[in-house]
Amino acid sequence: MATVIPVEDPADPRLTDYTRLRDVQLRKSLEAEHGLFIAEGEKVIRRAVRAGYPVRSVLTSRRWLEPLSDLLEGVQAPVYLADERVLEGVAGFPVHRGALAAMARTPLPSVPELIAAARRVLVLEDLVDHGNVGAIYRCAAALGVDAVVLSPRCADPLYRRAVKVSMGAVFAIPYARMDDWYHGLGDLRAAGFRLLALTPDQSAVPIDKAVPAAGERVALLLGSEGDGLSSRWLKEADEAVCIPMSPDAMDRGVDSLNVVAAASIACYGLMRS
Amino acid sequence: MATVIPVEDPADPRLTDYTRLRDVQLRKSLEAEHGLFIAEGEKVIRRAVRAGYPVRSVLTSRRWLEPLSDLLEGVQAPVYLADERVLEGVAGFPVHRGALAAMARTPLPSVPELIAAARRVLVLEDLVDHGNVGAIYRCAAALGVDAVVLSPRCADPLYRRAVKVSMGAVFAIPYARMDDWYHGLGDLRAAGFRLLALTPDQSAVPIDKAVPAAGERVALLLGSEGDGLSSRWLKEADEAVCIPMSPDAMDRGVDSLNVVAAASIACYGLMRS
Repeated sequence: MATVIPVEDPADPRLTDYTRLRDVQLRKSLEAEHGLFIAEGEKVIRRAVRAGYPVRSVLTSRRWLEPLSDLLEGVQAPVYLADERVLEGVAGFPVHRGALAAMARTPLPSVPELIAAARRVLVLEDLVDHGNVGAIYRCAAALGVDAVVLSPRCADPLYRRAVKVSMGAVFAIPYARMDDWYHGLGDLRAAGFRLLALTPDQSAVPIDKAVPAAGERVALLLGSEGDGLSSRWLKEADEAVCIPMSPDAMDRGVDSLNVVAAASIACYGLMRS
Repeated sequence: MATVIPVEDPADPRLTDYTRLRDVQLRKSLEAEHGLFIAEGEKVIRRAVRAGYPVRSVLTSRRWLEPLSDLLEGVQAPVYLADERVLEGVAGFPVHRGALAAMARTPLPSVPELIAAARRVLVLEDLVDHGNVGAIYRCAAALGVDAVVLSPRCADPLYRRAVKVSMGAVFAIPYARMDDWYHGLGDLRAAGFRLLALTPDQSAVPIDKAVPAAGERVALLLGSEGDGLSSRWLKEADEAVCIPMSPDAMDRGVDSLNVVAAASIACYGLMRS
């Protein structure tokens, strides 16, 4: 059973894991240094625990103790109890979801380990927006993707906003991060995956026409928000595929879908078979 | 040609249109009261002007005068010139996109006027997130939607974040707002639209099976982020349609797609024919 410890000072060093949750730069270095991430809200904390991430501590207010009691029962970590003023003082904003947990990261598999048993894989190249990464994991979990491979510079799926937007799907889909961008697709190719590069280029193969053959292993490559896929990865892919847009899209000033919309449609078209 | 007016005080009353752009409550009342909205960044401002919205004023810094010069040429409104400190002082955050324009709203058409010539319509019920509204407009513009109908309480497509996320697509797709939620679908029905209600309920008709007949007019109803469509609208619809999810989605803790992902897939499936 967790030990409940009241705290009254936002500067209490035991709360360091929760410092300034909206300060992206600080959080990146702090989370990397201490190997932690933050789960926010009862549902997401439950999913993180169920997925096997160890709890470092919980920070919550009195009225959340009861709804969390069964969960805290099994947790061997301090539960810091604070009023809303202290919560806001530490986190840097009003914590509406009532409960935060600092969780320990666990080692990621290597790419070959990750993909050994996978049939449908998403590969994310250098996405910068944590919300987009989270939304893509949610969509992947809904639409039958087995695993996600991240480029070395792709935004962190365990960053608070990604976790939140994914509704915890980042805990449900196994993923790995490549060591090397340039040769990063080699492991997928070696494992026999067909590499499909998603591009807004309307001269590419429409995704309806790219439906995988029975038993075929497919990796769908998604590029970053601004620039799309690198020319290196486009060239490495077996085929470029696109989502056909309406003929009047350009007249309307729209030359592409956003990456979440594009990923959703492509996963729907390719990943369910 | 616009008159360039240097300003040095963030509290200058001529800059009231730009006050505290991240303060949602303030902005809602201010924009409603003065019938204005904010376009942010060169591209979006250009699209708003091209769509015929009158410019009330522009607020920018010296280095943006040149890239905007052709646009400002045609504008009969004051151009306030400020350094970055003043811009930040007014807006409440660092204005990275360099230029803001206060634009006048124009009267919306009635729903019957809007849909008279439309064949593919999206109907948004009570979406609360401006980013989601913007993303859905972008997707609608890319995938052949002719018009958008908003429920009385649906979030404003001309709110700054919606405009930004849509990349200006909110200016390209005509839209209207219902006066009355309860009887709001009546105009669409009277115009002969087939009303399809999108639901996560996996016992509904899969969208692949709901492809419209040639010439059929279709309105796709999308519900709010948390609760989905109201039971009233679900009952009013001709048919409930769903996006089939992977059989293991529930095991992964995912019981639905987010509204943007769902809208994208549904528009792709239904709107292009």
